[in-house]
Amino acid sequence: MNAIARLLKPRSVAVIGASGDPTKTAGRPVAYLRKHGFAGEIFPVNPKLDSIGELRCYRDIASLPSVPDVGIVLLGAERAIGAVRELAARGCAAAIVLASGYTETGAEGARRQQQLIEAAGAMRILGPNTIGLVNLTEAIVLSATGALEMDHFDVGSIGVVSQSGGILGSLLSRAAARGIGLSKLISTSNEADLELADFVDALADDEATQVIALYVETIRNPDKFRAAAAKAARAGKPIVAFKIGRSEAGAKAAVSHTGALAGADRMYDALFRQLGVIRAQTFSELLDIPAALATGRVLRGNRIAVLTSTGGAGTLVSDSLGMSGFDTPAPDEQTAAALRALQPGDQAALDRNPIDVTLAGLQPDLLRGAIRTLLASPSYDALTIIVGSSSLAMPDLMAGAIQDCLPLSDKPVIAYVSPHAPTVGALLTQRGVPAFAAAESCTAVLAGMLQAHRWQPPQVDATPAEPVPTDDLAAGSLDEAQAKALFARFGIGGPREFIVSTPQEAERAAHELGGRVVLKILSDQILHKSDVGGVAVNVEPEQAAARLRAMSDEVQAKAGVRPERFLVQQMVTGGTELILGMHRDPLGTAILLGMGGVTAELFQDTTLRLLPPSGGLSRGEALEMARALKMWPLLDGFRGRAKADVGALADAIVSFSRMVAQLGERLVEAEINPIFVLPEGRGVCAADGVVVLR
Amino acid sequence: MNAIARLLKPRSVAVIGASGDPTKTAGRPVAYLRKHGFAGEIFPVNPKLDSIGELRCYRDIASLPSVPDVGIVLLGAERAIGAVRELAARGCAAAIVLASGYTETGAEGARRQQQLIEAAGAMRILGPNTIGLVNLTEAIVLSATGALEMDHFDVGSIGVVSQSGGILGSLLSRAAARGIGLSKLISTSNEADLELADFVDALADDEATQVIALYVETIRNPDKFRAAAAKAARAGKPIVAFKIGRSEAGAKAAVSHTGALAGADRMYDALFRQLGVIRAQTFSELLDIPAALATGRVLRGNRIAVLTSTGGAGTLVSDSLGMSGFDTPAPDEQTAAALRALQPGDQAALDRNPIDVTLAGLQPDLLRGAIRTLLASPSYDALTIIVGSSSLAMPDLMAGAIQDCLPLSDKPVIAYVSPHAPTVGALLTQRGVPAFAAAESCTAVLAGMLQAHRWQPPQVDATPAEPVPTDDLAAGSLDEAQAKALFARFGIGGPREFIVSTPQEAERAAHELGGRVVLKILSDQILHKSDVGGVAVNVEPEQAAARLRAMSDEVQAKAGVRPERFLVQQMVTGGTELILGMHRDPLGTAILLGMGGVTAELFQDTTLRLLPPSGGLSRGEALEMARALKMWPLLDGFRGRAKADVGALADAIVSFSRMVAQLGERLVEAEINPIFVLPEGRGVCAADGVVVLR
Repeated sequence: MNAIARLLKPRSVAVIGASGDPTKTAGRPVAYLRKHGFAGEIFPVNPKLDSIGELRCYRDIASLPSVPDVGIVLLGAERAIGAVRELAARGCAAAIVLASGYTETGAEGARRQQQLIEAAGAMRILGPNTIGLVNLTEAIVLSATGALEMDHFDVGSIGVVSQSGGILGSLLSRAAARGIGLSKLISTSNEADLELADFVDALADDEATQVIALYVETIRNPDKFRAAAAKAARAGKPIVAFKIGRSEAGAKAAVSHTGALAGADRMYDALFRQLGVIRAQTFSELLDIPAALATGRVLRGNRIAVLTSTGGAGTLVSDSLGMSGFDTPAPDEQTAAALRALQPGDQAALDRNPIDVTLAGLQPDLLRGAIRTLLASPSYDALTIIVGSSSLAMPDLMAGAIQDCLPLSDKPVIAYVSPHAPTVGALLTQRGVPAFAAAESCTAVLAGMLQAHRWQPPQVDATPAEPVPTDDLAAGSLDEAQAKALFARFGIGGPREFIVSTPQEAERAAHELGGRVVLKILSDQILHKSDVGGVAVNVEPEQAAARLRAMSDEVQAKAGVRPERFLVQQMVTGGTELILGMHRDPLGTAILLGMGGVTAELFQDTTLRLLPPSGGLSRGEALEMARALKMWPLLDGFRGRAKADVGALADAIVSFSRMVAQLGERLVEAEINPIFVLPEGRGVCAADGVVVLR
Repeated sequence: MNAIARLLKPRSVAVIGASGDPTKTAGRPVAYLRKHGFAGEIFPVNPKLDSIGELRCYRDIASLPSVPDVGIVLLGAERAIGAVRELAARGCAAAIVLASGYTETGAEGARRQQQLIEAAGAMRILGPNTIGLVNLTEAIVLSATGALEMDHFDVGSIGVVSQSGGILGSLLSRAAARGIGLSKLISTSNEADLELADFVDALADDEATQVIALYVETIRNPDKFRAAAAKAARAGKPIVAFKIGRSEAGAKAAVSHTGALAGADRMYDALFRQLGVIRAQTFSELLDIPAALATGRVLRGNRIAVLTSTGGAGTLVSDSLGMSGFDTPAPDEQTAAALRALQPGDQAALDRNPIDVTLAGLQPDLLRGAIRTLLASPSYDALTIIVGSSSLAMPDLMAGAIQDCLPLSDKPVIAYVSPHAPTVGALLTQRGVPAFAAAESCTAVLAGMLQAHRWQPPQVDATPAEPVPTDDLAAGSLDEAQAKALFARFGIGGPREFIVSTPQEAERAAHELGGRVVLKILSDQILHKSDVGGVAVNVEPEQAAARLRAMSDEVQAKAGVRPERFLVQQMVTGGTELILGMHRDPLGTAILLGMGGVTAELFQDTTLRLLPPSGGLSRGEALEMARALKMWPLLDGFRGRAKADVGALADAIVSFSRMVAQLGERLVEAEINPIFVLPEGRGVCAADGVVVLR
């Protein structure tokens, strides 16, 4: 057994600094281990006590009768270091350090945390600043969370890793109240050693765990996280993550809480999407979506039947579903006929969706019949059952009737509970029908299930790129012409253009190009050419010389430097303007595609993809990026426009991504802005660009 | 006392079709009246029974010993009609009709509902298809909702009107579980007579009600609703509305549920905004926001202090707040010093927000001190307290400590409860600190309070418009030139242009205009000119004649008709392209302002304002419309662009709205598309437009 396995399932636990008073934090771990039925050995360590309850108490770690698998260290930040050193010396697999006062408090704390790491040597550390872990599968609780005051927890298949200890307690108690079964919960907090990815990896191996739920403040080691997520995906275990630090304020708070640097939120979006991690949009969804995924049922399409015994709530749920793109079609002819056969009387409500059985009152047989019919119907991919107050009188009968039908199909069946009835909700969830008190939860859960079913790992670039020679490039900013020449080496063409120095050369170049031209200064110093009057468009060849003279004067006046070189460039017309760039942060390097032009910033129509460790993006991913833009219809023949050369755009994205991958750390900045996508068959044109190398 | 007052507070109630079996729907109203302490007279009517419990049962309505204020009719749809007629004959104030089988079921049901209305004569009807009403203020329950099986309800100041009966029960039970106090709940359902607006009006008068919560499927009578909402606003009673039918699917379900035609959702947004009605975005917010408003506390700004005794949850809440534009600044120097003085030891966490008192554990005195300090701090407009598991051991002490501080300030104080602890949440809510289990609820509640504080009734147009002569206009589509001439009558100018018929005239007109021109066909038949090749831009005067000939041929080929007249129009350059139009639906007539151009449809950047009954929009509202667009910065000097003539745009919006108001029902359609907003001082230019009159 490796150290993490021993940590999750120890045979013996030492509790360093245990108190005999179970109302104190230091008294809780021993009390909880016993209360929740730990079958192994417990070694309390406290020089001032002879025993805690019936347990013998040891004066120090050296006196322990055998080597514990795990030590729970309840001492303060300074004294914990010594305890960790002694546990390591005894050959303990891992220490759980609860004390705060480490990196989260500043420089002094960071120094302490470094000492802690050194003291541990080869022994693993969970924490510090952690609330510990809970293994419900094996009834082992190594935690001081007050949530363990509760007596009963549903054991199930959802494994939880939280970077906050308080949140672990919140998830534990909320799941218990809702009948949601968990397997393991681990709070990693400061992650001096063991981190989120280590436990994703461990849960991917854990037989009891089928779904992994993550409360994320920051991902410290993206490569390790990628590997662990890929392993979970191969094991068929979906991951659901709630990530805080979405707002600037939240990001600041996250820093103060764990000393972690929160990466930009959109990069997390990109990483999660590429890894198939389902992102919970609210904290509630971090239990809701796993609860549904844990049923193992599969949502294959977006057509949902809503079965209701109360009118208003059915409408509420179908309204919420409709807003998220789900379809709630009326029953097909055959399904409607089968429903009609179930009950006599006024049957108008059976031809619609929500399928309303209000009139019949709540009869288990009718309910059973309706559920069977809807699960068998080719019109529906899932069933949402609305629980009204009439069901409250006989929750067991109702839950039983629903449960009877589950084996008939693997389509998802979920419930919305309209009145306040938490015990009915918990009962349904325990019986395999995840129940929710918010319509938005029903929608989020179904969206998560659909995402889990549809996700495919991103295509890998099948034809590894031939390296392009770049050793000749010097460090520093490239000027526009050099930048475009570099793009061209990687296969991304630009407009025809000439570099000129004099008015006469400009006029000659313009005539050579034919038609109107763009005239720009060429400089590796001035980044914002337009701001200093350094760009003129739509220039007639006859006016090129005069325009150059005027531009030279204006730039001299505004930037204090007389430009020596100019670009005379073919005007690009009839294309759609985009921006193609790169962004680098602690999570990795991403390629960005976005709407170009002056309105781009206002509408924030951009999409990001992180580069895989292996190199550039695949063509499939590149196409997906284009289709992910709100402005995609403009490229796709919107309202009679010519279709744009999307194939060439995809090629350009792939080429750009290969350039970024190949240059690696040498590349500080790179952007093509604008890149024009011309009508089909005419390719793309990199009209301007920036490259900074180091 | 008027009929609605008698309905809400009857001294005597007849229950027609009462059953002696309280487990049946027909047995509930009598049972619930007695269970919840009705002090007036109850007259069960059932020819088959002599008594129900100790109550004498009457054989028919004619036999009742006195005239009841209200009759609850529990008979089926057909028989209810006769009972209503008899109650009306006795002089009853109102009948509550529970039966379904009316308009919601189709044509036959609609006929029945008409008979019901006729049978009632001057007597008022609540329903049919209603679950009744609950007056908690006076312990009068006239309802069959199963939620009344609960024993205790908090009496408070939130009045609820729901167009769904099932939803009334859901709100009643959910509020009870959360310690949220309600005053009256009324389910209007089919609204054969009494409707939503009647009860908004009545609750505006009701002393016990301070906040009004509405569950809306459709507003049948917008004028009445406007008047009632205005009355509530004058009484200082905020209205919070949750409106379903937001998605197309939801709208369909709403139709099937109440037989109502749901208006387009964005029109409701406009109506609510103009009336100061706070729109709940989720069903949960329909209790959350009123619970906070009912405290009577006032949010004057967006700076929120988050006081926490558990790290992760504080971050969660501040992250959610940050995403909605709230600010969570660190304590100012003086506030931080005051906090530090409260507790010894490591105090780093007190210089930040969330203000973290984890280290100190939960001590009521410390909590009291911290709350006092934060409420007194000039840095904060409100306080959110995070309740962690450590508080669960002594909820009363904690709630008491918080409650003690409330009189010190009228700033809002709300709580987020991190673990599962519904009783703690209810306790806090009952003590005046509304508590929520979702971070998003905290954010929504504060946003609602801010909206309530900041709302001002829309400015009324101070200078009523002089009527513009329009009697000369014939019914039918105007051509482009006529449409623009009409806009010009109302003061909205267009480009200089000439109407021509021949190539020679076109060339002459183009030379007269000078520079390049736009050439278009002029027709009241062809609405989409570009689709048939009927528009050419950027035409040199020398090419105008040839271009006209080519256009004539192309239109002939594509539209099958040879155009006889053309417009030669000055090219408009340097302006920002918008759309200004009108939209009419059952809620009223709205003016729409939106981004123009080909991307407009993709980004849906539009805003709507309903016309007031009195005429056009005020200039203040017109400016607000422009500022409400995402593209507003483009008009406001974004990135060094010239500022646009926003004043002229506002004038044009006012003028257009006056035109729409003056033409009233005569106007079928009107749109200026595009209207160019030119740089400051240069006005606007209505470049094209459509007008259809009847």
